Amino acid sequence: MTKAAETGTLMVVSAHAADFVWRAGGAIALYAQRGWRTRVLCLSFGERGESARLWQEGKTVEEIKVIRRAEAERAAAILGAEVRFLDAGDYPLDVTSELRDALVQEFRQYRPDIILTHSLQDPYNMDHPRTTQLVLESRILAQAHGYPSSYPVIGAPSVFLYEPHQPEQCGFRIDLLLDITPVFDKKRQAMECMEAQEHLWAYYTDVAKRRGVQAGRNSGQRVVYAEAYQRVYPSVGGEFL
Amino acid sequence: MTKAAETGTLMVVSAHAADFVWRAGGAIALYAQRGWRTRVLCLSFGERGESARLWQEGKTVEEIKVIRRAEAERAAAILGAEVRFLDAGDYPLDVTSELRDALVQEFRQYRPDIILTHSLQDPYNMDHPRTTQLVLESRILAQAHGYPSSYPVIGAPSVFLYEPHQPEQCGFRIDLLLDITPVFDKKRQAMECMEAQEHLWAYYTDVAKRRGVQAGRNSGQRVVYAEAYQRVYPSVGGEFL
Amino acid sequence: MTKAAETGTLMVVSAHAADFVWRAGGAIALYAQRGWRTRVLCLSFGERGESARLWQEGKTVEEIKVIRRAEAERAAAILGAEVRFLDAGDYPLDVTSELRDALVQEFRQYRPDIILTHSLQDPYNMDHPRTTQLVLESRILAQAHGYPSSYPVIGAPSVFLYEPHQPEQCGFRIDLLLDITPVFDKKRQAMECMEAQEHLWAYYTDVAKRRGVQAGRNSGQRVVYAEAYQRVYPSVGGEFL
Amino acid sequence: MTKAAETGTLMVVSAHAADFVWRAGGAIALYAQRGWRTRVLCLSFGERGESARLWQEGKTVEEIKVIRRAEAERAAAILGAEVRFLDAGDYPLDVTSELRDALVQEFRQYRPDIILTHSLQDPYNMDHPRTTQLVLESRILAQAHGYPSSYPVIGAPSVFLYEPHQPEQCGFRIDLLLDITPVFDKKRQAMECMEAQEHLWAYYTDVAKRRGVQAGRNSGQRVVYAEAYQRVYPSVGGEFL
Amino acid sequence: MTKAAETGTLMVVSAHAADFVWRAGGAIALYAQRGWRTRVLCLSFGERGESARLWQEGKTVEEIKVIRRAEAERAAAILGAEVRFLDAGDYPLDVTSELRDALVQEFRQYRPDIILTHSLQDPYNMDHPRTTQLVLESRILAQAHGYPSSYPVIGAPSVFLYEPHQPEQCGFRIDLLLDITPVFDKKRQAMECMEAQEHLWAYYTDVAKRRGVQAGRNSGQRVVYAEAYQRVYPSVGGEFL
Amino acid sequence: MTKAAETGTLMVVSAHAADFVWRAGGAIALYAQRGWRTRVLCLSFGERGESARLWQEGKTVEEIKVIRRAEAERAAAILGAEVRFLDAGDYPLDVTSELRDALVQEFRQYRPDIILTHSLQDPYNMDHPRTTQLVLESRILAQAHGYPSSYPVIGAPSVFLYEPHQPEQCGFRIDLLLDITPVFDKKRQAMECMEAQEHLWAYYTDVAKRRGVQAGRNSGQRVVYAEAYQRVYPSVGGEFL
Repeated sequence: MTKAAETGTLMVVSAHAADFVWRAGGAIALYAQRGWRTRVLCLSFGERGESARLWQEGKTVEEIKVIRRAEAERAAAILGAEVRFLDAGDYPLDVTSELRDALVQEFRQYRPDIILTHSLQDPYNMDHPRTTQLVLESRILAQAHGYPSSYPVIGAPSVFLYEPHQPEQCGFRIDLLLDITPVFDKKRQAMECMEAQEHLWAYYTDVAKRRGVQAGRNSGQRVVYAEAYQRVYPSVGGEFL
Repeated sequence: MTKAAETGTLMVVSAHAADFVWRAGGAIALYAQRGWRTRVLCLSFGERGESARLWQEGKTVEEIKVIRRAEAERAAAILGAEVRFLDAGDYPLDVTSELRDALVQEFRQYRPDIILTHSLQDPYNMDHPRTTQLVLESRILAQAHGYPSSYPVIGAPSVFLYEPHQPEQCGFRIDLLLDITPVFDKKRQAMECMEAQEHLWAYYTDVAKRRGVQAGRNSGQRVVYAEAYQRVYPSVGGEFL
Repeated sequence: MTKAAETGTLMVVSAHAADFVWRAGGAIALYAQRGWRTRVLCLSFGERGESARLWQEGKTVEEIKVIRRAEAERAAAILGAEVRFLDAGDYPLDVTSELRDALVQEFRQYRPDIILTHSLQDPYNMDHPRTTQLVLESRILAQAHGYPSSYPVIGAPSVFLYEPHQPEQCGFRIDLLLDITPVFDKKRQAMECMEAQEHLWAYYTDVAKRRGVQAGRNSGQRVVYAEAYQRVYPSVGGEFL
Repeated sequence: MTKAAETGTLMVVSAHAADFVWRAGGAIALYAQRGWRTRVLCLSFGERGESARLWQEGKTVEEIKVIRRAEAERAAAILGAEVRFLDAGDYPLDVTSELRDALVQEFRQYRPDIILTHSLQDPYNMDHPRTTQLVLESRILAQAHGYPSSYPVIGAPSVFLYEPHQPEQCGFRIDLLLDITPVFDKKRQAMECMEAQEHLWAYYTDVAKRRGVQAGRNSGQRVVYAEAYQRVYPSVGGEFL
Repeated sequence: MTKAAETGTLMVVSAHAADFVWRAGGAIALYAQRGWRTRVLCLSFGERGESARLWQEGKTVEEIKVIRRAEAERAAAILGAEVRFLDAGDYPLDVTSELRDALVQEFRQYRPDIILTHSLQDPYNMDHPRTTQLVLESRILAQAHGYPSSYPVIGAPSVFLYEPHQPEQCGFRIDLLLDITPVFDKKRQAMECMEAQEHLWAYYTDVAKRRGVQAGRNSGQRVVYAEAYQRVYPSVGGEFL
Repeated sequence: MTKAAETGTLMVVSAHAADFVWRAGGAIALYAQRGWRTRVLCLSFGERGESARLWQEGKTVEEIKVIRRAEAERAAAILGAEVRFLDAGDYPLDVTSELRDALVQEFRQYRPDIILTHSLQDPYNMDHPRTTQLVLESRILAQAHGYPSSYPVIGAPSVFLYEPHQPEQCGFRIDLLLDITPVFDKKRQAMECMEAQEHLWAYYTDVAKRRGVQAGRNSGQRVVYAEAYQRVYPSVGGEFL
């Protein structure tokens, strides 16, 4: 894994259009600020499952996709990320071999050093763990010499899982508290792009504060805002970090 | 946690005299080489439970302690570490409030940035998890303002658990594969100080090789020798490391 | 969740025709007696995997379905439940998007307050955990405003998992011991409708007795017969119940 | 377990003087308001481990005990609870057979219907899980006919564990989200009695809000403030609650 | 581990006088019948915690010990086992270094091939897991060359844990279903020696039947009565057994 | 399960052509030597995911299949096993109902007493756990009277899982250390048939040695080489083995 001082690529795979903002917005802004390429893949717009207010306002599914895309693009721009929408549908997100291949080709082409995605379990949202499994499998396929592609195989990018809405019900283990204090204002601005979900702005600000307090207790350092992550594969290196 | 480029203190708490060599010898050599202070606490000499050959040769417990101390001191010197023996007895290691206080005062006085110790479970060796619990509790007490001491409270040193003999039976989770390739020759030399346990030299060389192969698979980098560690508390910082 | 004194709807989703009798017959009878609507969905008749005697007697698959349906209907009538058969096939039960949609529409139309289904794991029966996953996902889809349906979205019905045949091998956790003493005679009568499985009548009577003894030990109350359940989502309310 | 409409006794066993306020203050106020007897046992004043500011101000251990006692008594009064201090010492809380007997006699004399205490694990605080083990064992002893006491044996009170500071690191499972909205103002007032820990007032208000949001998602009801609890023993009764 | 056809020693360590009958009576009778030495250690008589009826009848603790001893001796005789009572007290069973040494010397002197004891957890009975820990540690000490004893060190006897009263609450894993059909009549007779616990005769007959049915399902063989066991250490040998 | 002295059938289901050699080669040679029928099913040739060197040499997928088939056939012949290739594709291995039926018919026709396959989890290789699930389900279907087949239903063959490459990351539990010392030379010869993977010969020789050392520690017997296995279903029988 490339050290932060050097440049690299951070890729975020998000089941629905807004997930990357609430859950990994700080990480994206932090790495973008350091000069990394940051790239977000939204498998769907969250058009059916995470747009309750728009449905209540009588919008059609196509109108909702347009709105959700625009919000996600604004948020990504604020965070400093590219964004690609795969429009694979949500609630349910049905994983096809085409979608899997699209991810493999993404990993081959963009060659991320770090991949962020959802938790391994989530009894409140089946699209999330399905995305995680898809990411893990696509990463493995992208490592295989025999998998057909016009790009060469990749190495072994790190995979980190961002915090789900109800971590205790999702078997979520906190391996890393990422200090996002220097970029929290950007995360807040990006959250505010999600106009239909104003109640979540304060909610995820509070989450970041609580994780900040815990980061302080775990390190003895002063941290104001943090994001929690779980590692999938062991860390490798010459230091206890 | 202090970065490796800077200086700091690494403390290893080992139930028996030789544990630190087989399990954390690479880490000690690595940090000593970087200019860190490295300090080993041996709670006992392993005189009853881990000196079978010496008992079979008819040595007394006092003679065995002398031999084991000498071996451990030679090994520590090769690795670049100070060593202190608490002579608390083994098989069983009975934890007393005096022993606990000794650890608290050690942590207060030497102020480790990183602490290494045994696994949380070990159905083959009760002294090991008992040591781990003792370390975790003593670290907490050393953080408490009201705990009596002539030294000030400490911050929040990281705690890493080194690999037990049979990791799958000990619920051991690998969070970090530490690349010890640059110092492996020192670890080997230190292992060879344990003259009564020659069969373990090859055994732990093989373990280091296997962990090295796995480190390669998890990072895409070339690693020849590694040691496996489990984290107790989440990592805190500004990078995905 | 509606209190027992009020009326409501209890829905049971059973992979095979007879599962609901052995595993949740007491719960159904109890709620039916209180005036709740109780509705059972049998995804299959258990025609291939759970009708060994009928196959040994040389019956065809269509004859077996007729027999199993008749038994299940008699049992449901005794318990006081409606029953619907989805005839989706068993051994293996292959989950299709049509079957999933059928469940979503059921949840939307009948609006259960409580849903009962199988355990999360079962290494002896793959149809069972597959049904559980299907139920959990369909419930989530029924909550989504954008999921197409002529019925409005539902709230958050409780989900309880009934006891599998070998609970220790299925990771089954007991969160609730439901006292079915007042209705046990109905459960016994319903079990006796399963003529081809007479050996199970005594078996599940013994299970109910054992769970009754345990209910007594856990509450200090006298309970003769009980059924064990695992919760999927936290309970919410103003009491420690 | 007695239903909320009836009267009963709720007992809270808290390792340190303030734990019951942050973690179970809502439950206490809720049950006190319903006419239950609510009784808090503080095993220590938290004088060494949880009074950093007072030590920094140069207070002696005896002065700190007086201050902490006074705060806890004010908080208990606001919540409507009796409070007893066992002054068993903290950091470390060393469990003696005298302390264990004191708890057994308390359970025999006051005969709680519900007992609240700490989580089963806590790698940040050894006094907490030690208290939990002590409570579980004392409850069992209080049930034994042969345990010497001038009070008769007890039945089987429910035991619920309140939320630790870092639930994901403590293996904490949420079984119940208790709606404390009607009494949250009392919990807030009680928290404000802890003058030396002003930074925690906002922190635990945020925790209660987040648990409230989650309670809403798990029930479909509107809940503003909640406390999270884990059950130790299965619930027993005639309803899916 | 010695094969059944050969002779050997089976040792059962039971916290209270009657535990070995309900939980391991079949195993004892089976091995006794094969000509093995079978030896039971009762750490206590269960005089305080498991003799409710005798206390209700107004017996003194010394009278109860006499009665419980007599019952256990009769049961052991029927099963074909020797029995030794250590009279260490129960509820609570407080583990002392004398008791630990007594077990080490027992293991050294009698050199069991197989050891049976309680489960690793039991939230209903703290004496049980405490006994298990004591057995595991004493077995390790008995293997240590430096542990003082007039008997030589032992090898590596297998350890199996018998089924607790509420296995799902005790984290009990079933690794072996032991077919006790040929000796079940002896187990029943031995259970009937426990005159004060008549309600348990039928209960544990039902448990044995249920485990027998499950043994049949797991092997395709006909088994009428079985006992369930968990392994502590991996099996070693030249066959998949 | 048939005892080793008698004859029987051992079946190994391997996702890729070489898995059975590294992971279960000792078991196959051991049982073949005893006169058992040993039969290997390779679901794929590992042509895409486990043939990096051949791809780097510019071979086509069809050429690679030919090479991998030839190697696997040579290895199987050395071990004494029949081998069948199902050519279902790898990376990803997509499970179809045809493949599932092929396994059911295999189990019905060859009637294995023991089945060996992969671990339940493997975050480095999705084909492995998918194979395990397929094997478990096909075995259940083969037991069902109503599943269409020209062969009769089977009983309850044991299922053992062989060790994955990184056991600690795969939740692998060691239930059995199989002593393969008498046949290790055959396993080594079979491994040497895998010419493109020379680096693994030493690696898996070291694994066998380490498992041999651990087998010694767990049994007190001398074992040089061993293979580790996890049980899926409880063992059933009249002995503690």
